[in-house]
Amino acid sequence: MNKENLRFPLKVKEIAQAINGLVEGEEEIIIRNVTGLKEASAGDISFLSNPKYIEDLATSRASAIIVSHDLKSIKDKTLIRVKNPYFAFSQVLDIVSSAKQDYITKEVHKTCLLGEGVILGENVAIGAYCVIENEVEIGEGTVIYPGCYIGRKSKIGAKSLIYANVTVREEVSIGNEVIIHCGAVIGNDGFGFVPSQGKHYKIPQIGRVVIEDEVEIGANTTIDRATCGVTHIGRGTKIDNLVQIAHNVKIGKNCFIIAQVGISGSTRIGDNVTLAGQVGVVGHISIGDKVIVGAQAGVTHSIPAQAVVSGYPARPHQKAKKINALMQKLPEMYKEIQEIKKKMK
Amino acid sequence: MNKENLRFPLKVKEIAQAINGLVEGEEEIIIRNVTGLKEASAGDISFLSNPKYIEDLATSRASAIIVSHDLKSIKDKTLIRVKNPYFAFSQVLDIVSSAKQDYITKEVHKTCLLGEGVILGENVAIGAYCVIENEVEIGEGTVIYPGCYIGRKSKIGAKSLIYANVTVREEVSIGNEVIIHCGAVIGNDGFGFVPSQGKHYKIPQIGRVVIEDEVEIGANTTIDRATCGVTHIGRGTKIDNLVQIAHNVKIGKNCFIIAQVGISGSTRIGDNVTLAGQVGVVGHISIGDKVIVGAQAGVTHSIPAQAVVSGYPARPHQKAKKINALMQKLPEMYKEIQEIKKKMK
Amino acid sequence: MNKENLRFPLKVKEIAQAINGLVEGEEEIIIRNVTGLKEASAGDISFLSNPKYIEDLATSRASAIIVSHDLKSIKDKTLIRVKNPYFAFSQVLDIVSSAKQDYITKEVHKTCLLGEGVILGENVAIGAYCVIENEVEIGEGTVIYPGCYIGRKSKIGAKSLIYANVTVREEVSIGNEVIIHCGAVIGNDGFGFVPSQGKHYKIPQIGRVVIEDEVEIGANTTIDRATCGVTHIGRGTKIDNLVQIAHNVKIGKNCFIIAQVGISGSTRIGDNVTLAGQVGVVGHISIGDKVIVGAQAGVTHSIPAQAVVSGYPARPHQKAKKINALMQKLPEMYKEIQEIKKKMK
Repeated sequence: MNKENLRFPLKVKEIAQAINGLVEGEEEIIIRNVTGLKEASAGDISFLSNPKYIEDLATSRASAIIVSHDLKSIKDKTLIRVKNPYFAFSQVLDIVSSAKQDYITKEVHKTCLLGEGVILGENVAIGAYCVIENEVEIGEGTVIYPGCYIGRKSKIGAKSLIYANVTVREEVSIGNEVIIHCGAVIGNDGFGFVPSQGKHYKIPQIGRVVIEDEVEIGANTTIDRATCGVTHIGRGTKIDNLVQIAHNVKIGKNCFIIAQVGISGSTRIGDNVTLAGQVGVVGHISIGDKVIVGAQAGVTHSIPAQAVVSGYPARPHQKAKKINALMQKLPEMYKEIQEIKKKMK
Repeated sequence: MNKENLRFPLKVKEIAQAINGLVEGEEEIIIRNVTGLKEASAGDISFLSNPKYIEDLATSRASAIIVSHDLKSIKDKTLIRVKNPYFAFSQVLDIVSSAKQDYITKEVHKTCLLGEGVILGENVAIGAYCVIENEVEIGEGTVIYPGCYIGRKSKIGAKSLIYANVTVREEVSIGNEVIIHCGAVIGNDGFGFVPSQGKHYKIPQIGRVVIEDEVEIGANTTIDRATCGVTHIGRGTKIDNLVQIAHNVKIGKNCFIIAQVGISGSTRIGDNVTLAGQVGVVGHISIGDKVIVGAQAGVTHSIPAQAVVSGYPARPHQKAKKINALMQKLPEMYKEIQEIKKKMK
Repeated sequence: MNKENLRFPLKVKEIAQAINGLVEGEEEIIIRNVTGLKEASAGDISFLSNPKYIEDLATSRASAIIVSHDLKSIKDKTLIRVKNPYFAFSQVLDIVSSAKQDYITKEVHKTCLLGEGVILGENVAIGAYCVIENEVEIGEGTVIYPGCYIGRKSKIGAKSLIYANVTVREEVSIGNEVIIHCGAVIGNDGFGFVPSQGKHYKIPQIGRVVIEDEVEIGANTTIDRATCGVTHIGRGTKIDNLVQIAHNVKIGKNCFIIAQVGISGSTRIGDNVTLAGQVGVVGHISIGDKVIVGAQAGVTHSIPAQAVVSGYPARPHQKAKKINALMQKLPEMYKEIQEIKKKMK
């Protein structure tokens, strides 16, 4: 069964079939919308993933709720039992999301300017007032919203989605199924200068950016091109809004880079790394696989694989927590030292 | 008297009348410009609000100065006395600002692309190369500068001002007298993924953004749409540049969110809250009414109403200040402990 | 010899001549590309500036390497010896970079909308879908990429480079040889409000922005116009991506402002100041010449010239480092105090 062709309204049993779930309750109810447990009203489907919120389930007005196989039954509630409720709910959201795609006209708008030697795959959609420079290649099924600029010789793979007002500079390589959100800038000059005779001379940034398949890049995020060589974002890595990635940075696969993170030049980030919001990472260091860096931390040295760090400068999280706790005791400690000194006199 | 029809040059007495002030000095002087006390030259009007800067008043070359009723008289200076000099000065700036509006042509530029079913109020101005998707509604007197994208089914109220290169995605609701600055992105996908079988699957973000009346949103700020439901910005809240507001955040009325703040998903912010620059707030917490959070603080727990907090993790500001002061004494404390240990031996 | 007319492929001796270097090895080798020591392959030229990386030189496959006069000779390697290898390498990158300029058509695209009274110098290039408002002046040889908006009465000097989707509001003054990267916003309203009768009234921001010659401004950076007067960026200052510069800030000459820095209103920054990444600076303070502020620091007070500061609140770096080191010893200190207390009983 192809989820992509489903459109609301749907019966509970149709949804259950699409997400491989078992209905407990009334399978003929019509579902028109998807929403959170608390906001739900009749005709809505919702989900419960974290047992902490079970009370919201009891009081929810949702007509059907996706839950795990082991959750107890709730009187008068229609449930769809699945293995992973959060994932199943996400699949139901996909039905709504796919419906939105129906509105995309699979054509190149007549005001879109295509340079010489541009190669477009089948079913490419490009919105109004886009400028696609010479020798750009865009793969099958990719959608580019209005107002985007794609620089000379850049390549975008298949089934990618470039939202409005994105700027991609020249010679950038973007993979398949990549999503780039509004206002992002890819392939901007890195920040490099060389001092000579009392002035700062610009170091031309002639390198490239390579973005692998299934990467997502947030709104107004900036990813700089390399000085020479490549700034590289690995497959499946997800980057939030307003993130800064400097020249020659290499990021591995399946990382999470949360909003407003800044990564300085030439740093290497492993696979499955999480950088929480507003983290800063200095240049020329390595962060190992599966490292987790807490929000607002400042990473000043290389971090071994699987470490969890936080604070400034970033140190092992357990130690950072202990030090934070002791900082709260500083007034007490100070007082005790003074008392000891007094007694010793 | 309608301030909106005043245009410089103006006599001192005309300005006094517009701001409900009393002239002390020469009321016939011609004023051509508005500026700060220090930069002022002949023909300028300026103001003094903070008595700390009274010496700047004495040496200022401004032809007229707006002051409070209780300020002492200054020899050879023409003063306009009002209740609130800062507010009155702001009204004078409004005269200059309104004059700028004269240049806005109240029309839809011929290169602006309007989708099907778009509803425009009277006197709507839309600049060149804007793309207004199907079923968008724009209220009376709203001005949209060139290069903006307004997504399907979005609504913008009356007398709002959308500067150049703003992106509003689909199904966003924007109130009356809202100002959105250049490059801002409203209604971008929230950052949501669900892990399954070693991959991160995107959770479609099908919710909306609601922005109430009189909100101001800074340049290159990003406000994400909800996963389901609504990301909500309350009436009169002012948001500075490069701020990140994640999915499902609710912000109350009359808040100040200063530049580069980041607010994580599903957090609730009360009314009249101030978040100073570069503050980070974790997800799923509540910040009470009238809370003030100091610059660069990291808020990791819910904060009760009217608290003033700072630091990382954010704690009551008075305590944070004390701890900061004691941190400066750490070298001394460390030395004292070593000396005590020595003596005890 | 005019470097701007050189194009790869080039012989080693031609490059040596262009950068005023001495060849040691085979001067007839053909060089086709420029890259880092590690990534280099046959036909590439690279450089060694930091002796720390001398082992990379030995194993590099580059066909020629730019080094300093005093570096020892390396068997079988063709070297070009110069005074400053980093600077010389940057000049070689310039050859590649200049070649890219060949693709810029020196014309105003037919879709570019020019307002009344616009004055364009010779050889100005303006890309598609730009909107240039009334009375704008643009100097000789300046290049503006597609999708930019230049507001009424703004001026851009000669030989400047404005990348795609940049927004410059009205009455902004930009000098010669300025580079503004994609998505930057110059001249946006400052963030100013005056409370009156329970509401926040907008203070109209009628001032300007002045950007002197040879300034570089990063992608998605925002520079606010002054309330009255001028927000000013001095000659040769380089600003990275996603930086926020508030209204009425004055920045001196040759400063480096790294990514995601925020500078609050009316602050004055001297000449040759470095603000590292994610630094925050409060409003209404002064930072002296040649000050260096460490990454993520929060500057809450004025800083005298030539100081090096870090941390929150920013203090002299040597002291901040000592305090950071002692914070790591807090668990030990706490334990020692408890032991002393026990013994004293």
